[in-house]
Formats: sequence, C-alpha cells, structure tokens
Amino acid sequence: MIYLDNTSATRVCGPALERGRAALEEYWAPGFQPYKLSQDLLAALDTRYQIIYDLAGAEPGDSFVFTSSGAEAINQVHWTAFLELARKEGKCHFITSAVEDAPMLQSLKRLEDLGCYVKAAPLDKTGRIDVQKLAELISPRTAMISLSFAHGLSGVLQPIEEIAALAKEKNVLLHVDATYALGKVYCPFQDLDYLTFSGDRLHAGKGTGGLFAKAGRPLQPLIVGGIEQAGLRGGAFDIPSFLSLAAAASQASLGLDLMSLEVARLRDRLEGELVQKIPGAHVLFSDSPRLPNVSVVAFPRVHQESLHYALCRKQVFASIGGQYAPHLARHLAAAGIEERVGETALHFSLSRNTTQEEIDRAVSIIVETVENLRLLSKDLF
Amino acid sequence: MIYLDNTSATRVCGPALERGRAALEEYWAPGFQPYKLSQDLLAALDTRYQIIYDLAGAEPGDSFVFTSSGAEAINQVHWTAFLELARKEGKCHFITSAVEDAPMLQSLKRLEDLGCYVKAAPLDKTGRIDVQKLAELISPRTAMISLSFAHGLSGVLQPIEEIAALAKEKNVLLHVDATYALGKVYCPFQDLDYLTFSGDRLHAGKGTGGLFAKAGRPLQPLIVGGIEQAGLRGGAFDIPSFLSLAAAASQASLGLDLMSLEVARLRDRLEGELVQKIPGAHVLFSDSPRLPNVSVVAFPRVHQESLHYALCRKQVFASIGGQYAPHLARHLAAAGIEERVGETALHFSLSRNTTQEEIDRAVSIIVETVENLRLLSKDLF
Repeated sequence: MIYLDNTSATRVCGPALERGRAALEEYWAPGFQPYKLSQDLLAALDTRYQIIYDLAGAEPGDSFVFTSSGAEAINQVHWTAFLELARKEGKCHFITSAVEDAPMLQSLKRLEDLGCYVKAAPLDKTGRIDVQKLAELISPRTAMISLSFAHGLSGVLQPIEEIAALAKEKNVLLHVDATYALGKVYCPFQDLDYLTFSGDRLHAGKGTGGLFAKAGRPLQPLIVGGIEQAGLRGGAFDIPSFLSLAAAASQASLGLDLMSLEVARLRDRLEGELVQKIPGAHVLFSDSPRLPNVSVVAFPRVHQESLHYALCRKQVFASIGGQYAPHLARHLAAAGIEERVGETALHFSLSRNTTQEEIDRAVSIIVETVENLRLLSKDLF
Repeated sequence: MIYLDNTSATRVCGPALERGRAALEEYWAPGFQPYKLSQDLLAALDTRYQIIYDLAGAEPGDSFVFTSSGAEAINQVHWTAFLELARKEGKCHFITSAVEDAPMLQSLKRLEDLGCYVKAAPLDKTGRIDVQKLAELISPRTAMISLSFAHGLSGVLQPIEEIAALAKEKNVLLHVDATYALGKVYCPFQDLDYLTFSGDRLHAGKGTGGLFAKAGRPLQPLIVGGIEQAGLRGGAFDIPSFLSLAAAASQASLGLDLMSLEVARLRDRLEGELVQKIPGAHVLFSDSPRLPNVSVVAFPRVHQESLHYALCRKQVFASIGGQYAPHLARHLAAAGIEERVGETALHFSLSRNTTQEEIDRAVSIIVETVENLRLLSKDLF
C-alpha cells in the first residue's frame, strides 16, 4: 500500500498513539474534584499547551480551546461572530473564498439561515484568492473574513499577510482555518484573529482539533455546560485525546524542516518523474506558493475517475476530493482551469513517513496505469 | 484508594480501553474514500450500533448521533428545538427541573439569551419532580420538557412514565438526559422523544457521548460540516472512541443485573453499617426510587466539607457535588431538606468494580473520621 492522500487523513503517529493509549487508562478521573486523583490531571496538562501554542505561533495571552474536530472549531468561531457581531452590532456579512471544505461552507450556510449574508472571493488562475476582488466585497457590515490558509486539494497557500493587512485596515475579524497548513509551513498567527485546525491531518487522532483566538477577541462556547476549559467548551475535558494531540504537535514541530526539505524533495521527485515519463502530464499550480507535501498532476487523455479507481485497485491511494472537500474537478474549475484538464487531474499528498522507495514505486505504477488507460480510451479523446 | 464518586466519572473499563487503543492504530483512515483502507471502516462499525441501541431501548428507525460528550448531546437537542420549534413555530417555552447539572442549565440559559423562556419544575420532599406542578407550567407555547432521568447526586429517579404521558397529552417534546441512569436501570426510551448520555459515566472514555432521537422527531446538527453521521454531526467520525463506547455499552448491558443486585446490596450494606455505627447518621431519599449505586448519608454534627476533606486525605473519595453538578447542599435544599441536615450530607456512588472489602474499609474509615470530627466540632453544634 502506498498512501498518498494525507490531505484526507493522516496515520496517528507513534508518540500520539502511545500518549493517548497510556492516558486513556491513567486519566479517567473527574476534572474538578478536590481529591488527588483529580488534581493530578492538572499536572498532566502542565507544559502540554505550550507545544501547541508554539506550533501555531500563539502568545501566552491568546486563548486556546481543545475541540473534538476542526469542524467544531470552525463552527465555534462562526457562532462567536454570530452572537457577538451579528446579533449585538448588526455586522452580519461574512466573506469566504470560492473553494472551501464542507465545515466552512456549511457553518457559514447556517449563519445565512440565521439571517446573515455570505459572499465568496474568487480565485485567480494561480489558485490564489484575488485580494483586490476580496477587498471589494467588504462592506461596513462585514463581521469576518473566514477562509483556509491552504486549500487541501490544490495545496496552494493563500496570501494571508495581504488579507490580514486588509482585514486590519477595514476593521474586520480574520479567521483562518490552518488544517492543511499547520505542521507543514510556518503559521503567521500574530496577524490573525482566529486560527482553527483539525488534529486528524496532523497525525493525531480523529477526535481532536483546536481553536486559537487572539487576546482580546470575543470567544463564545459552542457547547455550553460547565467550567471546563475556562467555560469555553462544556463537557468533560478529554485529556487523553488532548495529550495525544500535544504529542502529535510536538512531532510536527520537530518535523517542520523535514517537511520543507525532504518531503518537498520527494514531492518534486514525484512530479518530475511523472512529467518526464508520461507524455503530456503536467503539474498544476507549480508556480504558486504551495504546501510542501501536495501535488496536483494532470494526465491528459485519462479521466481522473478511471485513473483513481485503477490506482486504488493497485493499492496506490491518491485523491480526487470528496468527503469534506469539493470534488477536485470542481475545485480546479473554481481556479479557472479548463474542464478538460481539470477532469484528468489527480491529487497526491505526502507525509513525513512517505519514503523515496514508495514514491518510485508509485511512479512506475502510475506510469503503467496511465499507459493502459490511454490505450482503452484512445478513441474517446 | 477507595473510589466512591462514580457519579463524577468512571474508570475506563478493560474492553473499552482495549478496543479504543487498538482502533486508534487501526482506524485512522479517512471515512469516505473509495479505497479499501477507507471502506474497511464501515465494516468495523457494523454491529456496534446495535449494542448502544439495545442499552437505551431504541428501535432501528430511531436516530443516534455519537457526540464528544453528554454536554454536546444536550446542546444539540436544545439547538434542534430552537431551530425547529422556537424559530419556525414560535414555541419558545422550555421546562426543566429545579435541580439539573450545568450542561442542561447553561444550554437552556443560552436559549433564553436567544429569546426563549425557561421554567423549572419544583421537587417534592422525596427528591422527585412534582408532576402536578410541572403540568401547570405547560403552556400552548411550550416546546420541550428537558430534564434528567436520575439526578446524579441524589440518585433519585424521576417519574418519567408520568411525565412522558403528560408530554404526550400536551403535545410537548420530552428530552431526558440519562447520563446517570443508562447502564444502571432500564431506560424507557420508547416513551421519550430524545435521550442523551455521557460515556464517561458508563466506563467509556471522556470524549464520548450520545443522542437518540425517536423516529420522526426533528434533529439538527449542532456541529455542521459534512456527510458524516448522516449529516447530523460534522467533523471526522471518531471511530476509536465510538468503538470504545460500544465496548463499554456492551459491558454495561451485561452488568445490569449485577448493578441492581450486587451493587445495590453493597450500597445497602454501606448505608446499613454507617447508620448502625454512627449515632444520628441517616440515609436521605431512602424511600424514593433510586439508582442502585448511589447513596446520600447525613452525618449530624459534622460539616460535609470537613468530612469530605478528611476522607480525601485518607484516600476515600466521596463527593459533595461541584464540577458539572450543583453543590450537594444546594441540591438537597431544592428538595426541601433542611439546611442543617443538608450541610452534613455526603454523596457516595459505587460502580460494578466496587468490592465488599472496599465498602467495609470505607465504613471503618468514615466511622473513625466522623468520630474525630465530632470531637473537634462538639462546641459548634
């Protein structure tokens, strides 16, 4: 098996696994009782927050909420904006980008159901948000710009510094979902108001996610009910999952150099070999700033569904989107890529664990598969 | 250590621990990709739902949402009622009981912030809701009655059948939080519209909870963002935690007889010994239908805070409330118990793992501690 779909989910890393497993047995006690069993829980948390703060570039005064997923974190940010800005100040306009995952889109859709307005900033041909056009969408009633730092499928990094400067100038809150970027590239949280992420793309377990709010920004619980997490999230604090996330964050911090050097090298190797060995194959978004582990390659005269299916059968797991993400072809269409190219493209995403041997094996399987499919489909194109 | 605070949290049981640990390594793949790694996840879930349905007495047509806590489940029920009844039909009145935990109270408080009205039905001297007075609170605009099946601190079971008949007659939805009752007594879900529970009181991990909605009842996601769990809860489905909950539910089903026989016997032994050996000690709510594992005992001429603290020092962990629950003294005051009695009371809650040896050891430590404290406080009473 060669797993090249780390945008959809990542394997839980060893330290996260070990920490989570041990903690599941150790830290079952209630959180706020005066007896030792309970007080020991606090000691277990001690330095663990710092690791996650450091990874996101957050300061001690910023707030962090441990959530059960990135989706929950996104919902909480939007809910906060609804309660604090839409209801109290009448600022009920929201701006997102033209290509976002389901949690972002559906959470904003819910705000629309509650009387808010949402507009989407278009992408240019490089897969990046057109900041000029984004600026034109801002009105005096705009509460928040809410978008992804990097799109999981294209891997393209958005011009966050520019957008942050714009948000600051216009006095609009900026929420960035860093699910695909955290642990891959440096996260400029000091320029943002809110940052969210999902642990399952960071080699932590599925029941993990987080939300940072810069000091002074409003923050309301989505789940109310108790004093856990300073009243910012009701329900028992899931210490085992939190410790597992912290262990994964620590590994991600240690692996940042590896990601930008070795993983990027393997990604480039994958792209270079495919382009060289498959006539017409070409890399999309290669001129844009991209995540170091993501690649989208177009294979003219092969339909992506056929190629994806054939590769699955050969245990090479790539992606054409779906699940939370849009279909890859729709994603590419939103970036202005022609349909006949977009429908031949496949997404590959590597992880710290991907080896050169896997890449080379994947290349030869892909080359062979594309050749076969082209024989079958030669009359169709 | 003798742990007699299973109302606050329960130790994760062996099968839940093993299942959760194994699944954390096995089931990390994305949920909805066409490749085998992903499809295998569905097979893992196969029969696991049935165990949880059986424990709650739910039918195949009823909906179940796996949540990250009981608090989240309660929030989701109230949010559904807000969207579907308060906003659409103007039914914005809610009724709860005079003694509830923080998730119930704060979630209803949020509905008040959004324009709803909440009233609390009083308890009678037996710790039970006065159904006659509850009936008087119902108006044509009442959307939902939302309360606990059993109060965690008193252990008193509410007259759910009566309340269910009333709700049906008045065409009001009935939500029951069964956090303290599930796995302890039979749950009459067929009479209810919604049932919620928290896994951490069922010997599962902290990041687990659930929500049942009877077939045909409205149900909206609290966390939106994707097709997971039939669109009823966004965010990656946390299969390891779900399997861990199912394993715990299976153990709870097997242990129901043990709970109503052996655990009840040990609880009665604890009460009998304390009453016999400590002059003036008496059991509260002993004439009410109670959970088999809970006991509240008053120790006249000893303040509960002192006794609780002294017992904690001797590694006997009982409870005086707090955390999600109200303080025990306030809880007892709401049931009309005199303050000077309520402030001498301590809550004990057993589990399937509690042994007779532990009970006997606890009794002798409690007896000795009460005697010592009475010497110290003889001039105060």
